[in-house]
Amino acid sequence: MADKSEKTKARLPRGFADRSAEDIRAVEKMMATIRSVYELYGFEPVDQPMIEYTDALGKFLPDQDRPNEGVFSFQDDDDQWLSLRYDLTAPTARFVAENFDRLPKPYRSYRSGWVFRNEKPGPGRFRQFMQFDADTIGTPGVAADAEMAMMMADVMEALGIKRGDYVIRVNNRKVLDGVLEAIGLGGEENAGRRLTVLRAIDKLDKLGPEGVRLLLGPGRWDGGKEGEGDFAKGAGLNDTQAEAVLLATARSGRAVQDASVNANAVYQEGVGELATIEALVRAAGYGEDRIVMDRSVVRGLEYYTGPVFEAELLAEIPNDEGQIVRFGSVGGGGRYDGLVSRFRGEPVPATGFSIGVSRLMTALKNLGKLDTSDVIAPVVVLVMDKDTESLGRYQKMVAGLRAAGIRSEMYLGGAGMKAQLKYADRRGSPVAIIQGGDERAKGEVQIKDLIEGARMSAEITNNAEWRAARPAQVTVAESELVGEVKKILAAQAADRAKGGA
Amino acid sequence: MADKSEKTKARLPRGFADRSAEDIRAVEKMMATIRSVYELYGFEPVDQPMIEYTDALGKFLPDQDRPNEGVFSFQDDDDQWLSLRYDLTAPTARFVAENFDRLPKPYRSYRSGWVFRNEKPGPGRFRQFMQFDADTIGTPGVAADAEMAMMMADVMEALGIKRGDYVIRVNNRKVLDGVLEAIGLGGEENAGRRLTVLRAIDKLDKLGPEGVRLLLGPGRWDGGKEGEGDFAKGAGLNDTQAEAVLLATARSGRAVQDASVNANAVYQEGVGELATIEALVRAAGYGEDRIVMDRSVVRGLEYYTGPVFEAELLAEIPNDEGQIVRFGSVGGGGRYDGLVSRFRGEPVPATGFSIGVSRLMTALKNLGKLDTSDVIAPVVVLVMDKDTESLGRYQKMVAGLRAAGIRSEMYLGGAGMKAQLKYADRRGSPVAIIQGGDERAKGEVQIKDLIEGARMSAEITNNAEWRAARPAQVTVAESELVGEVKKILAAQAADRAKGGA
Repeated sequence: MADKSEKTKARLPRGFADRSAEDIRAVEKMMATIRSVYELYGFEPVDQPMIEYTDALGKFLPDQDRPNEGVFSFQDDDDQWLSLRYDLTAPTARFVAENFDRLPKPYRSYRSGWVFRNEKPGPGRFRQFMQFDADTIGTPGVAADAEMAMMMADVMEALGIKRGDYVIRVNNRKVLDGVLEAIGLGGEENAGRRLTVLRAIDKLDKLGPEGVRLLLGPGRWDGGKEGEGDFAKGAGLNDTQAEAVLLATARSGRAVQDASVNANAVYQEGVGELATIEALVRAAGYGEDRIVMDRSVVRGLEYYTGPVFEAELLAEIPNDEGQIVRFGSVGGGGRYDGLVSRFRGEPVPATGFSIGVSRLMTALKNLGKLDTSDVIAPVVVLVMDKDTESLGRYQKMVAGLRAAGIRSEMYLGGAGMKAQLKYADRRGSPVAIIQGGDERAKGEVQIKDLIEGARMSAEITNNAEWRAARPAQVTVAESELVGEVKKILAAQAADRAKGGA
Repeated sequence: MADKSEKTKARLPRGFADRSAEDIRAVEKMMATIRSVYELYGFEPVDQPMIEYTDALGKFLPDQDRPNEGVFSFQDDDDQWLSLRYDLTAPTARFVAENFDRLPKPYRSYRSGWVFRNEKPGPGRFRQFMQFDADTIGTPGVAADAEMAMMMADVMEALGIKRGDYVIRVNNRKVLDGVLEAIGLGGEENAGRRLTVLRAIDKLDKLGPEGVRLLLGPGRWDGGKEGEGDFAKGAGLNDTQAEAVLLATARSGRAVQDASVNANAVYQEGVGELATIEALVRAAGYGEDRIVMDRSVVRGLEYYTGPVFEAELLAEIPNDEGQIVRFGSVGGGGRYDGLVSRFRGEPVPATGFSIGVSRLMTALKNLGKLDTSDVIAPVVVLVMDKDTESLGRYQKMVAGLRAAGIRSEMYLGGAGMKAQLKYADRRGSPVAIIQGGDERAKGEVQIKDLIEGARMSAEITNNAEWRAARPAQVTVAESELVGEVKKILAAQAADRAKGGA
């Protein structure tokens, strides 16, 4: 045993978290629902490992001011660099490129799993989080993008989110790309400035138009005022250029652009694709209350090349500070025609959508849509005598209960009866089984209904409405143990269904 | 688009693998079954992140001849070392130590997830693999170990493995520890030699008693002959000492040891605990056909302190080379009383069991216990006209099918009708829907039963037994589309149930 003085401190690195039973069950339930919608749309599960060659993942993260540009990396024993995946899209592109010939095309697939970001952690911002993606690879037509948007709308409703409480927003990167080209920011030499513009627009919700205007122009101090916080260098646009960008990304959209923008081929292509997507989703019966075209959506990731989407929860939910706010984005995606091509040296168009699992789960819990109270805690068989023979007898009772499908356990601690009942209480156990020397001599067991017992004592103190009580404790022959426990559990279930104690 | 000359190579680092739809579905099914048994025993889900402080994980891996001693490690931006977890036990110990006061005790929990080993990969040996663990923390009594053994036996049968096709082997580290103390290998100064003995015994199945005898004594050449392969240094035991160790770890067990061993207190404690476990499992009705005491089980991990277990499949299954062999171990575990104590500076006894998910899945697939053929491929709606209006119409058909719960998709590629039917065939689709200009003018759709179509053409070529065929193709009014597809799918399901085509 370790000496107290040299013991290791039990702690987690910042940005990582343990998950509780309640969260795990809620996520399982939510993922099963999402999976059923993806399957209904004909998507197939597939998944990739968490470690890839660093060059295979590429560098597409928005936050590049950290070591390794936001990625956890390490060298293999052959000196090649490996990285933990930062999203599920880059590994998917590698997988499809590697197995291109044997896959059906277009290839519809889905996957869920943990991704890692070597970023500065903050409240609600983790360095390991879960995503649940769907991708369609091998088709250039925006019918695939329209399908993504419709599928996400269906996912929201399958999860119990009411129509009107969510919306899928759709835009097209080409719209902004065309504007940037028209105002003189085209060409390879302006790639860095275009990226700065993109990331500025992606912060519209957070900073408002004035903050974004600064990022488009001279730059902005993090703290909001000169000298406060870090200075973020701007894209260096002049007022006319910034105005054109803000006009093209205004939520209301479709504003009249000047002649050079209107004449731009890329801009026109973007506008045309948006119109096609809109026509397709409307034809399939998805109205403006589910899917809207919204020019303000750009998404922060560099690799998108065409349509982009965002799933937003409109429901107003208390935030961490207790303020009632719109919950906001729970996922997004878009077309990434360059990612698979990177490996193949030939065009392989692709589009996908990614759901932020933890964020969506938080929202659903707040909306009361992830009830896991149907999980019943185990029946506890108390240990009154600790000799091996008695333990064997208790063990046999537990085995009998389990054989009947009743979740149950023998108490394994070393404490007396009071401590054991306290343990059962802490677990939220429905029933406790007791057999001391007296009961054993008579071949009997005592069964305590812990729920009814708690209700009865509550009613005595609260003087609440009286209700005919079940006996909170019965003594039966050992052979009737399983049957009697079943009866009690059924009565408790009936009470719960009635909304009783 | 990338230039062909500078394109990135799509490949995975050695020891990592993509997972197919079939494998993912099989694992999901298997894990759901394991989970239901763990829950039945009163265990609660919990899980930990994949990254921990390196010192919190400790160094307990058997294979220490690699950089970082078999672990993937990297430095955080505050220079502290982080590692990817190499098992689920070490993070569990950290979690319990960190949250000790608020957890019920004993604390029964389970978790599944990926673990990582920075080892030399080989056939069937991966650097990322999945484990599914159950642990009971906070009780010193071997009743908890007996429960582990019984739960694993129940898991095997819940997975459909017949009694007689598996066995849970139980031993106790104290038996070997006592022998080592009695033959003069006690004390801190012999810790390294004891570890060498442990790892030699763990290779009994692989090397046989003669190979192990070399490892206990002077050492052994990897290739089996002097000068072949690498030389593994032995524990340096003399013949008498080696004989005592081999006697104490002979599978038949319970051989008479010499007086000094018999008088050793640790040895006696180990033998006594084994007897108690045996009594407990027999009392609960688990016979020698399910759980056996077996002195040859030692387990390779350093941190075990008492009872150790191993789940072995006895079923004979073809191996990778097509030879029929006993499948062997699919999981194991044991008592690790020191792991939580490392953090707490007070004794926190613990025991656990870990299932190797991929290995068990491979075994179950070979045994035909993981059928995933109940997943029906999607109905494909063909795209005969590509204008937006027509696409909208096909999209609406698909939406209607999905609304009725029928897995279906609109073809999203660019090819002609023949290529589309080939795609449907490749997907294994049950039904294809066709509406060209003629059908549309009449308000009709053509429905192809692809399963019946394939059967009919097979029968024509094979001249097989004639069976009244359903029509492989029907034309119905658009409004009858969903109803007709349902009828065809039901007929196909009935055929499958009859074992038909």
